[in-house]
Amino acid sequence: MAPPSSQACAAVERSIRERVPPLLTDLYQFTMAYAYWRAGRHNEPAVFELFFRDNPFGGGFSLFSGLLDCLLFLRSFRFSDEDLEYLRSVLPPATDPAFFVFLRELDCSNVTVRSAPEGTVVFARVPLMEVSGPLAVVQLLETSLLCLVNYASLVCSNAARFRMAAGSRRKLLEMGLRRAQGPDGGLTASRYAYIGGFDLTSNVQAGFLFGVPVAGTMAHSYVTSFSSLEEVWPHTLMTANGDHESIDLISLTKGWLRLVCELLGAEPGKIREGELAAFLSYAVAYPHNFLPVIDSYSVSCSGLLNFCAVALSLFELDYRPLGVRLDSGDLCRQSVEVRRVFRLCSERFSIPAFHSLTIVGTNNISEHGMAELNLKENEIDVVGVGTHLVTCTRQPSLGCVYKLVEVRGSPRMKFSEDPEKSTVPGRKAIYRMLDTEGEEATSNIGWKLKMLVFQFGLDHWISQPMCSTAETREKVQHSIQNLHPRYKRLEEPDTYTVSIIE
Amino acid sequence: MAPPSSQACAAVERSIRERVPPLLTDLYQFTMAYAYWRAGRHNEPAVFELFFRDNPFGGGFSLFSGLLDCLLFLRSFRFSDEDLEYLRSVLPPATDPAFFVFLRELDCSNVTVRSAPEGTVVFARVPLMEVSGPLAVVQLLETSLLCLVNYASLVCSNAARFRMAAGSRRKLLEMGLRRAQGPDGGLTASRYAYIGGFDLTSNVQAGFLFGVPVAGTMAHSYVTSFSSLEEVWPHTLMTANGDHESIDLISLTKGWLRLVCELLGAEPGKIREGELAAFLSYAVAYPHNFLPVIDSYSVSCSGLLNFCAVALSLFELDYRPLGVRLDSGDLCRQSVEVRRVFRLCSERFSIPAFHSLTIVGTNNISEHGMAELNLKENEIDVVGVGTHLVTCTRQPSLGCVYKLVEVRGSPRMKFSEDPEKSTVPGRKAIYRMLDTEGEEATSNIGWKLKMLVFQFGLDHWISQPMCSTAETREKVQHSIQNLHPRYKRLEEPDTYTVSIIE
Repeated sequence: MAPPSSQACAAVERSIRERVPPLLTDLYQFTMAYAYWRAGRHNEPAVFELFFRDNPFGGGFSLFSGLLDCLLFLRSFRFSDEDLEYLRSVLPPATDPAFFVFLRELDCSNVTVRSAPEGTVVFARVPLMEVSGPLAVVQLLETSLLCLVNYASLVCSNAARFRMAAGSRRKLLEMGLRRAQGPDGGLTASRYAYIGGFDLTSNVQAGFLFGVPVAGTMAHSYVTSFSSLEEVWPHTLMTANGDHESIDLISLTKGWLRLVCELLGAEPGKIREGELAAFLSYAVAYPHNFLPVIDSYSVSCSGLLNFCAVALSLFELDYRPLGVRLDSGDLCRQSVEVRRVFRLCSERFSIPAFHSLTIVGTNNISEHGMAELNLKENEIDVVGVGTHLVTCTRQPSLGCVYKLVEVRGSPRMKFSEDPEKSTVPGRKAIYRMLDTEGEEATSNIGWKLKMLVFQFGLDHWISQPMCSTAETREKVQHSIQNLHPRYKRLEEPDTYTVSIIE
Repeated sequence: MAPPSSQACAAVERSIRERVPPLLTDLYQFTMAYAYWRAGRHNEPAVFELFFRDNPFGGGFSLFSGLLDCLLFLRSFRFSDEDLEYLRSVLPPATDPAFFVFLRELDCSNVTVRSAPEGTVVFARVPLMEVSGPLAVVQLLETSLLCLVNYASLVCSNAARFRMAAGSRRKLLEMGLRRAQGPDGGLTASRYAYIGGFDLTSNVQAGFLFGVPVAGTMAHSYVTSFSSLEEVWPHTLMTANGDHESIDLISLTKGWLRLVCELLGAEPGKIREGELAAFLSYAVAYPHNFLPVIDSYSVSCSGLLNFCAVALSLFELDYRPLGVRLDSGDLCRQSVEVRRVFRLCSERFSIPAFHSLTIVGTNNISEHGMAELNLKENEIDVVGVGTHLVTCTRQPSLGCVYKLVEVRGSPRMKFSEDPEKSTVPGRKAIYRMLDTEGEEATSNIGWKLKMLVFQFGLDHWISQPMCSTAETREKVQHSIQNLHPRYKRLEEPDTYTVSIIE
């Protein structure tokens, strides 16, 4: 894994400007800003709070993510002439032209953000961010901030649940780019799934921009693109230490294949030659990184036998093959069978390492399916998750809201026809009660949850230094560890008590 | 509504390059491309098909969308030196440096796309796109094409279902930006929800880039930011034709409020002064565009009364207020009550237009909730939909796949441990049987579904001219109209028969 380059860091910031221009918001933010401006109220000091109403996925907590993107967005918040020209065409004709002059000069230099740290455990109805500043400006920021926090926090929380369901032993690979809400949804998913506890991503751009470790070897199309051993070229390979002349890998593997068939009592006639050609060709290209997908035709009649034969050849040449990937059918049952065959090969051919080759499973795995892996016998070492992780099938929206709580120093609230939509007026200080061990405390000797304070200025940006993606990931795991297990149960957790005191 | 500017069109194309760089793909595309290259197979002619396995949302069809973005992506597909430097750091060290020289020179000049037209009705297991060209290149394109088609087609199909559920009379407003998978998810949702049959979006950037009509007036925060009538400034308004001096809108409205309370037998003591101030202030700013949200406190005790009083003042000054928005509680019941009060005001004060003011409903509406609007008594004219539309809660992924069907002119297929994951080998020509009326035909006298053919060249781009967003929207409605109603039922539709003939 390479750390992100400085170009990559600059690219993140540049991409926020491209991805979140100030027009990427709801029209009513502008009509409201105009009405404030028209009434001379646009500079009144106002405070909004960003929070969600229910912990996602029926869980006991959530993780807060997206802060860094929010800060980059605030820093770059400026209207271009082109933006204003378009706005002029869609706002009502009654709009005073001087309003656009006002917008042209707006930025977030008078906006202050108080926020929970990125990647910390948070709870329903507790403010995650407090945004204060001139009424018209902080109103205009609503939709963009919600858009940047909502999905990032949701997918990070979802990833943390997959992590808890998987246990700490198994490696988790995120591979949902093709099923996400377009390119940016996929990129956000890869970034925050890693922060939430995944180990790897298939998404190369996420590696490039955020330093997430990337992984992947081959798809079925690679396997099915081969039809005969004649397509294997070159078919020779040097030993790993390079001190012998090239060996003919095809003849070597044919010999091993006969032995494997004998050992397992398999029918050589059912073995796919194209699959063997694909495996050999990949092994010649990447002898140190051999991990083929073995279910393009049949695992037990072809894929597993071909794998064993090529892997045995690689071992003979002093390479260390990595393992196999299973992508369909009953992954648990198959993984047990695969491990049994690995053990037989290990014993029969006296190669201890053959026993512990890696088995990767990828087949539309849900959180529930992940939890089941701990109950059913299986030998899966790495699990790849796509659709259910990135689309958060169980609850595809966190439902964060951004509510006005104070104007000119006096509290504000909304009542609503739905009681649960009413808001708690006034600014809040957030405390979390922990004992000296960092466990949830039952007494009143409390510890205040630290809030970061960011101040935006035209030419300066006062803040705690921002964490790297990997550092944030560490913080997430630490923050989850400090939470009592009773709030972390995946199903029916205890409710963490959040109280309001004056 | 302003048409998108030429700057906006250029911005769409530029944004594809920013949003879908060639690294936004799975790592295994590169390891496979390397293995093809190493074996000298990278230029073998290959054909992939992009299709989905089941119609989404339990429906009988889907809409195909995302083609334009795919074409822009293919046109701009080039690796930068920075991309290659990163790739070098993550591919296995065994990778031959000459491979990066090969990648540096790659583009899609030898790639051909045959595709269903953007915005047409399509069915499960029928190829939507056929991508042919050099094996290594068409393999590298997989993830990006899937990412661009999957969500666009899903949200477009979802929008079409909301449209069918709503009937043609009601206007539909998309407002899901804050709940989408980040900025691009929100933008894609706004664009394709419109194409799928929505009328309006709240997303200003979608208006700017794609010419989608935008709408919106105010949120609860605007209402709750006011606490007294002293905040209304200016509080005078000229008549609409401007031929009288300014009238004091506060006194005028207070008079109307007394009459409204009398008419309805309401208690003036329960009326929120801050809410009235917010409505007055907005009416002064936008007297032609008065459509407040009336449930910040209580619809029947405050919001509706304040609205009627301000609206009556506006009518008196020859303006035409637009209506109200309801955002919580039982929208159907409240809309009936609101319409009853509109009728009473209309009759009592002899203003016929008061009866038919617009009622907008927005409260977490699902497709099911939309369909219920046709069964329950209600007076809702415009429905705003956010979360359930953009996250496609009922099925958050379409599950498109991209499968190799031919190499060097010979067919390819995959078997898989899951029978439904097996593929049909070889290239297909797609026909759709329609009779002369354009209805689904039962006889064999068929009509061939037209496929567009795109050819990419370095300096030329041969294609049918691309449609604007509005034109594609028209095509979608036309395509849906031609489909027999039995395939369009929202629940348990007939299965459209797709057969394979040789």
